[in-house]
Amino acid sequence: MSDLKTYLAVQRQKVNRALEAMLRADANSPRIVKAMHYSLMAGGKRLRPILCLAAAEAVGGNSENVIQAACAMEMIHTYSLVHDDLPAMDDDERRRGKPTCHVAFDEATAILAGDGLLTLAFEILTNTDLSVANNAKPWLQVIQRIAAGAGYKGMIEGQMRDISSENTKLTLTELEAMHTLKTGALIEAATCAGAILGGGVSAQIEKLKIYARQIGLAFQVTDDILNVEGDPQLLGKAVGTDQNRNKNTYPALLGLAASKTFASELIDKSLQALESFDNSAKPLREIARYVIARNR
Amino acid sequence: MSDLKTYLAVQRQKVNRALEAMLRADANSPRIVKAMHYSLMAGGKRLRPILCLAAAEAVGGNSENVIQAACAMEMIHTYSLVHDDLPAMDDDERRRGKPTCHVAFDEATAILAGDGLLTLAFEILTNTDLSVANNAKPWLQVIQRIAAGAGYKGMIEGQMRDISSENTKLTLTELEAMHTLKTGALIEAATCAGAILGGGVSAQIEKLKIYARQIGLAFQVTDDILNVEGDPQLLGKAVGTDQNRNKNTYPALLGLAASKTFASELIDKSLQALESFDNSAKPLREIARYVIARNR
Repeated sequence: MSDLKTYLAVQRQKVNRALEAMLRADANSPRIVKAMHYSLMAGGKRLRPILCLAAAEAVGGNSENVIQAACAMEMIHTYSLVHDDLPAMDDDERRRGKPTCHVAFDEATAILAGDGLLTLAFEILTNTDLSVANNAKPWLQVIQRIAAGAGYKGMIEGQMRDISSENTKLTLTELEAMHTLKTGALIEAATCAGAILGGGVSAQIEKLKIYARQIGLAFQVTDDILNVEGDPQLLGKAVGTDQNRNKNTYPALLGLAASKTFASELIDKSLQALESFDNSAKPLREIARYVIARNR
Repeated sequence: MSDLKTYLAVQRQKVNRALEAMLRADANSPRIVKAMHYSLMAGGKRLRPILCLAAAEAVGGNSENVIQAACAMEMIHTYSLVHDDLPAMDDDERRRGKPTCHVAFDEATAILAGDGLLTLAFEILTNTDLSVANNAKPWLQVIQRIAAGAGYKGMIEGQMRDISSENTKLTLTELEAMHTLKTGALIEAATCAGAILGGGVSAQIEKLKIYARQIGLAFQVTDDILNVEGDPQLLGKAVGTDQNRNKNTYPALLGLAASKTFASELIDKSLQALESFDNSAKPLREIARYVIARNR
């Protein structure tokens, strides 16, 4: 675990440095840049970019070449949080231990900052050297996967279902479908993007997709569990909020113990998907274990 | 003018048919799809996609190959309207003669429908045949231009300035900069996208960019004029709203007559930029004249 801690810290720093270079902000920057920067650099685990980098490594690629895609994933993730937190949506006032974007700025700015981050992600995904032959094709494939995962058949539909189900009791199947869309689709896209840009073959990409789907769901189950028994200090946000809002969660549906067992089974499945990979997939394996062991 | 009317009607129908094929919705569709479809198919002049198609023709390209890019431009334009209309932004209740998205659905759905349209635009922009060599490169260039034009250094910054200037008096230079960002950047991107995908060389693309910048601004000046003296029935929205909101407009700053002269000078400049083009640029020339002659 301490190996992983170092790995995560190194990767997180790499991602943060690259993000800072892609979106500079100072006291003289336009308000929109300040708002985008505020939310993008507000901390966070950087799970999606780290998965993107680790997937590139797992297929023997050089993670240096995929840092742009990794950062784009974090921009899309951050935009989705900024919009989810809006008064018309989840109406959250704190995120990552700080006031949410619409609280720190205002609602109009937060809407536009989210739009700006989503758009910037796609701009970043085109910043490859087009003078090198065949450089464009994998990037276009990656943009397609990311747009599909983030779009109305993926993450956005997941968010719609989340909002519209607040006062409806979902079945386990419906809950799983919602999370697979809301969280899983983007985690899958991040992992596949890394694998494609790392030069992985389709069999590898498919296995990494299965890996990502399992850990995406396990991540959400763990989020639900932490909302019941987590430490608000470590989490940087309030706990017990799901129950107060009558949200559909795994603990509410299965109980805490069965939710933990379920998360652990998902991680086992994610590790099975990596069986044919060599030691280059070690970070991915450790991340899978971390997803359910984390306390924030 | 009647030639142009036919041309515009034919192109509009082409765009509408393609849009319908890209985003189907019926009674059983998820709510997010219904909301996206509602706003996307609510009518509209389809100016940006038509410019994209006409620019491809102007450089001798086949406009059939750029219909996806044309439709993506309309999706981005529609997303920006859906978000601009939100209560936290311009708080508009009618658009194109119909209730705005957040009125017809609800605020959360409208935010997500906008997000969905923006994301779908980028997905559509990747739908090229990747088995054909060198197909990917121009599309990647186009995505870059569109993302830059629609992003925080383009359209989004324009909207920020528009919102934050509602109770400040802008100078003519500031007003022009705002519109060049808010409206011009996307019109430029649409025109350049058509030129790139139509196989235009860089000198042509640069000239079309100048053309687009002038008509983009002229379009906005005309919008301002129509908000003063237009027919609400034809426009499908209320008039006099700019003055009520104390908005910065050309008529408010220059008066009506000088605003009309200014628009007409911009169109002259846009036509000059097309001087070296042959008769394939006829639609672009006619569109330039239409931009200020329109009554809706």
